[in-house]
Amino acid sequence: MEPYTIQTDDSGSLPPVLDVHVNISGRSSMPGKLKGRKARWSVRPSDMSNRTFNPIRAIVDSMKVKPNPNKTMISLSIGDPTVFGNLSTDPEVTQAMKDALDSGKYNGYAPSFGYLSSREVIASYYHCAEAPLDAKDIILTSGCSEAIELCLAVLANPGQNILVPRPGFSLYRTLAESMGIEVKFYNLVPEKSWEIDLKQMESLIDEKTACLVINNPSNPCGSVFSKSHLQKILAVAARQCVPILADEIYGDMVFSDCKYKPLATLSTNVPILSCGGLAKRWLVPGWRLGWILIHDRRNIFGNEIRDGLVKLTQRILGPCTIVQGALKSILHRTPQEFYHNTLSFLKSNADLCFETLSAVPGLQPICPSGAMYLMVGIEMEHFPEFENDIDFTERLIAEQSVHCLPGECFEYPNFFRVVITVPEVMMLEACSRIQEFCEQHYHCAEGSQEECDK
Amino acid sequence: MEPYTIQTDDSGSLPPVLDVHVNISGRSSMPGKLKGRKARWSVRPSDMSNRTFNPIRAIVDSMKVKPNPNKTMISLSIGDPTVFGNLSTDPEVTQAMKDALDSGKYNGYAPSFGYLSSREVIASYYHCAEAPLDAKDIILTSGCSEAIELCLAVLANPGQNILVPRPGFSLYRTLAESMGIEVKFYNLVPEKSWEIDLKQMESLIDEKTACLVINNPSNPCGSVFSKSHLQKILAVAARQCVPILADEIYGDMVFSDCKYKPLATLSTNVPILSCGGLAKRWLVPGWRLGWILIHDRRNIFGNEIRDGLVKLTQRILGPCTIVQGALKSILHRTPQEFYHNTLSFLKSNADLCFETLSAVPGLQPICPSGAMYLMVGIEMEHFPEFENDIDFTERLIAEQSVHCLPGECFEYPNFFRVVITVPEVMMLEACSRIQEFCEQHYHCAEGSQEECDK
Ligand SMILES: Cc1ncc(COP(=O)(O)O)c(C=O)c1O
Ligand SMILES: Cc1ncc(COP(=O)(O)O)c(C=O)c1O
Repeated sequence: MEPYTIQTDDSGSLPPVLDVHVNISGRSSMPGKLKGRKARWSVRPSDMSNRTFNPIRAIVDSMKVKPNPNKTMISLSIGDPTVFGNLSTDPEVTQAMKDALDSGKYNGYAPSFGYLSSREVIASYYHCAEAPLDAKDIILTSGCSEAIELCLAVLANPGQNILVPRPGFSLYRTLAESMGIEVKFYNLVPEKSWEIDLKQMESLIDEKTACLVINNPSNPCGSVFSKSHLQKILAVAARQCVPILADEIYGDMVFSDCKYKPLATLSTNVPILSCGGLAKRWLVPGWRLGWILIHDRRNIFGNEIRDGLVKLTQRILGPCTIVQGALKSILHRTPQEFYHNTLSFLKSNADLCFETLSAVPGLQPICPSGAMYLMVGIEMEHFPEFENDIDFTERLIAEQSVHCLPGECFEYPNFFRVVITVPEVMMLEACSRIQEFCEQHYHCAEGSQEECDK
Repeated sequence: MEPYTIQTDDSGSLPPVLDVHVNISGRSSMPGKLKGRKARWSVRPSDMSNRTFNPIRAIVDSMKVKPNPNKTMISLSIGDPTVFGNLSTDPEVTQAMKDALDSGKYNGYAPSFGYLSSREVIASYYHCAEAPLDAKDIILTSGCSEAIELCLAVLANPGQNILVPRPGFSLYRTLAESMGIEVKFYNLVPEKSWEIDLKQMESLIDEKTACLVINNPSNPCGSVFSKSHLQKILAVAARQCVPILADEIYGDMVFSDCKYKPLATLSTNVPILSCGGLAKRWLVPGWRLGWILIHDRRNIFGNEIRDGLVKLTQRILGPCTIVQGALKSILHRTPQEFYHNTLSFLKSNADLCFETLSAVPGLQPICPSGAMYLMVGIEMEHFPEFENDIDFTERLIAEQSVHCLPGECFEYPNFFRVVITVPEVMMLEACSRIQEFCEQHYHCAEGSQEECDK
């Protein structure tokens, strides 16, 4: 029998795998140096996929509780502003996509880091005198997530470390650990509107630190750093010679009484990779358009980091070209009222939620200034029935059908996160259910009668 | 001075970095264990980004030749069927996108591996009795490139190896090497219409082999494997217990005289990850929609590989939701004539190119049966002026303004690849220029007068 002829039965299917095994184990007359790989099938997932751990998924999946059947579910858990139908993108944004489709010009491959024309649009939109930008400083990516992935992948080797905020967005850790990069947590201080504990942050830096990840405005805190706090962060980076990955996906999403400053506008020397995207401000997270703005006025990244980023984009060849083709109109035609309306809606929900929950015994909400979230402290000593924040939020689902993510999802126990993108009536209803829940479970802490008079 | 207060000048910019360095080197009164990372800036790209090597880019970028100014450039080098404007997607495909936009239902986040409804559509489209598929067997990705990346990432650890075709698509190597996975090349035999040298392939398999990559129909060869050849490939995989990554992005793109069989339809036991996408058959490569079909009837991948793939999708959260939302109409409404027209156009260009080049002295084109390419052998002994295929294709640009990729881009010297998606007149013109070029440079090989009578 010709060695590479195989016998098939009538249906053309292969001989069962067992027959084949007999052949490997020495009795066959197969030619060549057939080392034989294994005597049987054994296909295991790689270490990298095993290490790709999403704490939110892990925690939420293990929270196997049923909502109260007598109350409709209110989910304040997902950072997707579109799910409730009350916040939708501007018609100009949709029209821009249709125009890009009709033009027929955006169906082919773009350069892997984005069309020149689209990069020019981003550059001129975010350009300013203090932080100039040019098309060559822009990399388009598949969402802000890929922007973050590429920045970490170009800056850090396995065995190095990055500094990330606690509480913070879990993707930094998920990505870093999957690549064998160690994660060190610096603390945000709730009493200081979630400013960074700079001393503690600086103490974490060592010779293996590849970058500081700064997320401003913040998920999950909804905090916005002041100019002077940002300058202090930059001073640490400058002193320690550590570049910054600035996750500014919520850039410009700040409430009227507050000002947002892109980190790069406050530094002339610290090299910064700023990550952003259409997801949040333009309310189209599913479209997967993100970007990296390369700020490097002292040429510290140099061509090597730029080339490294470009090379990494060649792995999956960039974001959808139709969205790229629509970028110009999206950035230039979206009316100011659209941004304004979104923000005043968020601000009003934030106030409503903050004020209601401030009056609830045992809760300590921290007032947000931007983004789409609010963190609420749980005075666990007053809720002895609950073991921790996971237990607390689980019972909140079971009894009140209100779903919030436990702080544990953000490496920050004894808190829970509230998403404030829900319609106002739902926000109100959710807050009053949380109130009812807390009132039902609140216990005076031992020996502190005054607390109970609250 | 308060340690984390910094002095700023009027413009708010930071003190120059040198001042800061003086502080680290021992004379400052900084608190905490400030280990000091480095005395100066040094930001180097990671090993991974250095290892991310795209041979096509490297070779093409180093080919710094100017085309002949008296002849318009004809580029037969890029695998993008849309660039010449003669092949465009069907109006139903564009309409499907507009409908998805108008519905307003596809702006939010989808599950990271794709909407259930979109996965159902793919499953039922590719389902057949011999290789059943269900929504749970589908992972949507950002292009076929990401599909391949995820498959390699889940199957192989650094230090393991994969077997890839030579000549072959360069992305397999680019991705594998960036992840520290070794690449071993198995040979395709031009005299056998690019069938695999199965004996040589099998001899490469060892205990570290994580998968066989099989690309059918093939880029760059345009070859299509017969059913019996596919069965023999499967027999090797079964015997050696090695799973298959089937790159079937050109699936169904075969000329009328030939039949395409998805690999999975011919096996009941070998676990197969089949990668595909909209790019080629629907002529929208820029839209970045790809997929993985998981074929695992013997449960060899099991839940672990499935879960591993899902976890890996959580890194960048899947492809654009508008394209996902349009999938159903794209697959069900695109008229049969569209596919038919594309293929008969490709077939006619393939014939034209093959026939013309077959008559050219010193060239040995290999007749394609599908996809969008053709490989042409160069009898280098008849072109002693040229050092190699890179030199040959470089001079073809310089003299005739015809750009083809040298075989070296596909690890296969002494060949060049022709893209057959250009308009017929350009195909004709390109072929006659290639002919002129070869006639001008053809030399009789020493001592073989008969060759010169050709
Ligand atoms: C802080 C932060 N960064 C990045 C992202 C990811 O954005 P994208 O959807 O564009 O990948 C999110 C999404 O929730 C986020 O909250
Ligand atoms: C064989 C092969 N596989 C995969 C791809 C990548 O396809 P996509 O553009 O969907 O990422 C290509 C593109 O040329 C290809 O030729």
